[in-house]
Amino acid sequence: MKLPGVFNKYRDAIDADLKEVLTPFDLPLYDMMRYHLGWTDAAGRPTADGSGKALRPTLCLLACEAAGAPIDRAIPAATAVELVHNFSLIHDDIQDDDSERRHRPTVWKLWGKPQAINAGTAMNILANVALMRSGSRGLTAEQCQSMRSILDEATLHLIEGQYLDISFEKRDDVGIEDYLTMIKGKTAALIACSMEIGSLAGSGDGAAAQKLGKFGECLGIAFQVRDDILGIWGDPGKTGKQQGNDIRRRKKSLPAVCALSGENAEQRSTVAAIYGKETVSDEDVDVVLEIMNRMKIQGQVQTVVDDYCDRAGRIIREAGIGAGTLTDLEEVLHYLAERDY
Amino acid sequence: MKLPGVFNKYRDAIDADLKEVLTPFDLPLYDMMRYHLGWTDAAGRPTADGSGKALRPTLCLLACEAAGAPIDRAIPAATAVELVHNFSLIHDDIQDDDSERRHRPTVWKLWGKPQAINAGTAMNILANVALMRSGSRGLTAEQCQSMRSILDEATLHLIEGQYLDISFEKRDDVGIEDYLTMIKGKTAALIACSMEIGSLAGSGDGAAAQKLGKFGECLGIAFQVRDDILGIWGDPGKTGKQQGNDIRRRKKSLPAVCALSGENAEQRSTVAAIYGKETVSDEDVDVVLEIMNRMKIQGQVQTVVDDYCDRAGRIIREAGIGAGTLTDLEEVLHYLAERDY
Repeated sequence: MKLPGVFNKYRDAIDADLKEVLTPFDLPLYDMMRYHLGWTDAAGRPTADGSGKALRPTLCLLACEAAGAPIDRAIPAATAVELVHNFSLIHDDIQDDDSERRHRPTVWKLWGKPQAINAGTAMNILANVALMRSGSRGLTAEQCQSMRSILDEATLHLIEGQYLDISFEKRDDVGIEDYLTMIKGKTAALIACSMEIGSLAGSGDGAAAQKLGKFGECLGIAFQVRDDILGIWGDPGKTGKQQGNDIRRRKKSLPAVCALSGENAEQRSTVAAIYGKETVSDEDVDVVLEIMNRMKIQGQVQTVVDDYCDRAGRIIREAGIGAGTLTDLEEVLHYLAERDY
Repeated sequence: MKLPGVFNKYRDAIDADLKEVLTPFDLPLYDMMRYHLGWTDAAGRPTADGSGKALRPTLCLLACEAAGAPIDRAIPAATAVELVHNFSLIHDDIQDDDSERRHRPTVWKLWGKPQAINAGTAMNILANVALMRSGSRGLTAEQCQSMRSILDEATLHLIEGQYLDISFEKRDDVGIEDYLTMIKGKTAALIACSMEIGSLAGSGDGAAAQKLGKFGECLGIAFQVRDDILGIWGDPGKTGKQQGNDIRRRKKSLPAVCALSGENAEQRSTVAAIYGKETVSDEDVDVVLEIMNRMKIQGQVQTVVDDYCDRAGRIIREAGIGAGTLTDLEEVLHYLAERDY
């Protein structure tokens, strides 16, 4: 499944502004960020690697267009959400002890955890610095302030979600509602915020912005749940990860939560025993996979993806958005619901 | 040496506002913050322990008074700087692997490093949330925005200082200028910011605020250098730490930087060899202490404290501040220059 064209539409504008925000800073602390963002290698030499798909800034700029405004009003906001997302990845990798991201060593793996904490925290401040430049794009101080409050709140929710995710590792009673609360924070809050502040930057219309934020929340949930599916049934050739990877890591993703709360007591306790182990063997992964398949969990979980996509679709179709932007948003939505990497 | 009375003057107002900012939040993530701030024990029960001396919020409110305004205009700013300070302590303890602070286990020691990173980062966001409430104290959106930019910049400097401090551990060529750059970030930036935004909240006069910021910077440097002295020659009965503690930890504090760049090559290389060890023995500490004493480093370093205090004193005497507030500020200054704990 190909990445929709809209992900290329704003790519250059996003990259240029991100680079501009970092330009004044030359301490090696900021080189750690440039490395993380995929611009340089570990020695600081420029690379052609490129970074992620820039989902959040793309959605932010689409929301600005949906509000009928030129994208440059929302460029600072787009940069801000991308920086918040990336700061959280730097900290995530420390917290999860992950030594690779996008086939490269993680920041902490190269510079140590103490300095990686600094790089992440400083990148979070830079997100604020980036957003404050909205004033030079014709936005009033009041508008900047309310965008900043929305970003603050979303960042808090993101961290709360990360807190819950880590706390779930030690719990054996995580239900579907707990799981949804967690991903609403960890994943959906910043995606919702990206849409909301993009829309606000465009039109200043708070009610319209909240609607797009709601769309972003549904999209964010669908995105994360689809990610959970790929984390177990994804094609290793496409995702770059082993099949059953999230089982091996004993992640309480939605398929695991479903398997752990299934009706068959024997299956349930087999899965629970494996998720309670210190290390999970290849055989364990196969056992869990077989139980999940027997329980038809993949289909069950994809229903959740489709359901949130439907909700999201309804919201934008009723939002009075111009045809071109509506098509772009629907394309993103379908891509996220069905992507295979 | 007794803590000057001014530290009690605003204590209740500061504590009440800090508590108010945290009130809406009930996830256990926020209980980690309440514990760190000294309000509760590890089980969440209220304690009578009390927290630190609240230097930064006290200075922030004094700066507001120096601008001739009632302190409640600067209360949100005071709370914000205290939260930034405390978020940095939570992260510091993780980075330095310190398991005790104020005679209690550190946050990471109780909840693990991954969750302590979350608690620190979330507290940094709360500082912004706290500051944004300045609007309800009669400040304009433009004033709020410029206070927030000043706080962003100070927080970045603080993290840069922390980055340098950690990077010094592996360097053997740290000079006095490097050291000053580091503490200007790590310690002085937030103290300067406390004065500057307190003054801005009071009068909105940017030039006056910058002067007080400069006072804060000098005070912050003096404060840190005095801290370095206490870290080596402090009375264990008063500081709660062993004599020579910073030598044992091989910290590149100012006395160490001076000893490592002294004129006598033999002394220099003896000290360098000990600071290059993995673990420092009691005998090593005695050897370094004796060399430092022979080099009269304590007096030399106190000269730096006194010099920055003189500069700070000149700035406020020329700033046209009312007599009462001037006396308070001078009291703080003398206390910080001579304190023995």
